[in-house]
Amino acid sequence: MKWPTIVGYIAAISTTVAFIPQLIKSHKTRQTKDISFGMYLLFCFGLLMWTIYGIALKSAPIILANIVTLAMGIYILILKSKHG
Amino acid sequence: MKWPTIVGYIAAISTTVAFIPQLIKSHKTRQTKDISFGMYLLFCFGLLMWTIYGIALKSAPIILANIVTLAMGIYILILKSKHG
Repeated sequence: MKWPTIVGYIAAISTTVAFIPQLIKSHKTRQTKDISFGMYLLFCFGLLMWTIYGIALKSAPIILANIVTLAMGIYILILKSKHG
Repeated sequence: MKWPTIVGYIAAISTTVAFIPQLIKSHKTRQTKDISFGMYLLFCFGLLMWTIYGIALKSAPIILANIVTLAMGIYILILKSKHG
């Protein structure tokens, strides 16, 4: 595997896994006041677009990374909607 | 321009612009308690990796989108460090 591919995988894993601590924090504390609803709404829309882009390109890493992040983003958005 | 390219641009713009409402909110309110430090730390690291990946691929859209998001991510991280 060439080094840019490895860096690409590290990048994809990092920006996906990054949402786990936020998800856990928001789930546990039920406190989402300081989180921007607009950010997660637009971010989730963007992730859906990235997923469609990945499908068009038949790129499994793009599809996978974005679907996982999208699922977490939607959950954070639900928590935000519930707890304000 | 082919449709997947257009979708890719919409995706890149959306996931970048998404951080503007969070940045404005955190800057104005100075309240960052509900935001996960770990998320932004890992996310910024990931964005740096995406930027390096973009440089290796000589892809201007990847470099640009990620450098802009990285700058916003670092600023949110600084606000979080200051306001807890």
